[in-house]
Amino acid sequence: MRMRRKKHRDERFENCSELFIDDILQYKNDLRAVFEDDKPLHLEIGCGKGKFVCEMAQLHPDVNFLAFEKNLDVAILAGEKVLNAGLKNVKFYCGDANVLNEFETESRADIIYLNFSDPWKKSKQKKRRLTHENFLSMYGKLLKKGGAVYFKTDNQKLFEFSLNSFADFGLRLHNITLDLHNSGFEGNVMTEYETRFSEMGQPIYRCEVYFD
Amino acid sequence: MRMRRKKHRDERFENCSELFIDDILQYKNDLRAVFEDDKPLHLEIGCGKGKFVCEMAQLHPDVNFLAFEKNLDVAILAGEKVLNAGLKNVKFYCGDANVLNEFETESRADIIYLNFSDPWKKSKQKKRRLTHENFLSMYGKLLKKGGAVYFKTDNQKLFEFSLNSFADFGLRLHNITLDLHNSGFEGNVMTEYETRFSEMGQPIYRCEVYFD
Repeated sequence: MRMRRKKHRDERFENCSELFIDDILQYKNDLRAVFEDDKPLHLEIGCGKGKFVCEMAQLHPDVNFLAFEKNLDVAILAGEKVLNAGLKNVKFYCGDANVLNEFETESRADIIYLNFSDPWKKSKQKKRRLTHENFLSMYGKLLKKGGAVYFKTDNQKLFEFSLNSFADFGLRLHNITLDLHNSGFEGNVMTEYETRFSEMGQPIYRCEVYFD
Repeated sequence: MRMRRKKHRDERFENCSELFIDDILQYKNDLRAVFEDDKPLHLEIGCGKGKFVCEMAQLHPDVNFLAFEKNLDVAILAGEKVLNAGLKNVKFYCGDANVLNEFETESRADIIYLNFSDPWKKSKQKKRRLTHENFLSMYGKLLKKGGAVYFKTDNQKLFEFSLNSFADFGLRLHNITLDLHNSGFEGNVMTEYETRFSEMGQPIYRCEVYFD
């Protein structure tokens, strides 16, 4: 399966390549210019196979979504979903989200989604966690005042680390839940991973963090 | 057992009555005057049978502890523990902690402990939860600037409610853990309840909240 996907990768990528930004640094003064209109901009860092961003874009046609994914094989699957749905309000960047550190001015995004990010379990890897203070600092430059990070994970240790990281960074926490699917929270759009793990009875942790 | 305790209650209370404050409102301008010396003041709201406050007082002889407990039968057990340990840095008030709303000036306590407070599970009871905003407002008047509430519970729903209550009140969260006994946190003193429930494999939630 993996071999077959690789075999056809170039062709498949070509089919949805219009959705992918090649040189993201050309937008380093205004990330919103990725899109031609001036709708609110939401980012997803690590979109995986794209179920979340695709459904969100369908539900919110008045929002533009820019999704980051390092793994090209996975990003192509996400691109195909968006292509098949005929959505015009989603773009992808295939590469490391650290490129956003190069952005020089406020890029005025409204929301950044972090869904089921890699927990990087070893303590010496903690700087790689997407909720490490170095990333929070980067998000602060990308978000408009009052913008927010929406974070969810099934990993208790990552959630614990993240709550402390958010709080120690001086951010305002809101809507914290330790069991999202039994919390009464409305409008949750599930990722592929979330669907699988919640079916196994794994609680999902979620919170919002505001950059006031 | 309950009958026997009640039968001897007056006598048992008499033995440790010197540890109990009768008219706490006489200290409403300065809660620290409960003690004759000027050590830092820590409060425990709902001390139960007193294991926590007694051990804390032994570990921290340079701190004064004032413990609140509504249930006299239980408070007597706590008083007896302190009496038997010969501790001079613990006092009790048997009654509703809401009496602290009457305190008029900053009472300069350093820390307030909330250990395994009643979760008051029904939504309509939420104002009774000791982490409801009405109580947070009261704690703010009792604590010195930079003072803190140290909160722990085995009740996931209460912890979730409390994290949101703290955050929405604008307080600074710190040292949040979703599994205290496996968190590497040092110096934890267990309550009776905590010992029993952690032996059953129940995770303990804890956080600190600073009133800056």
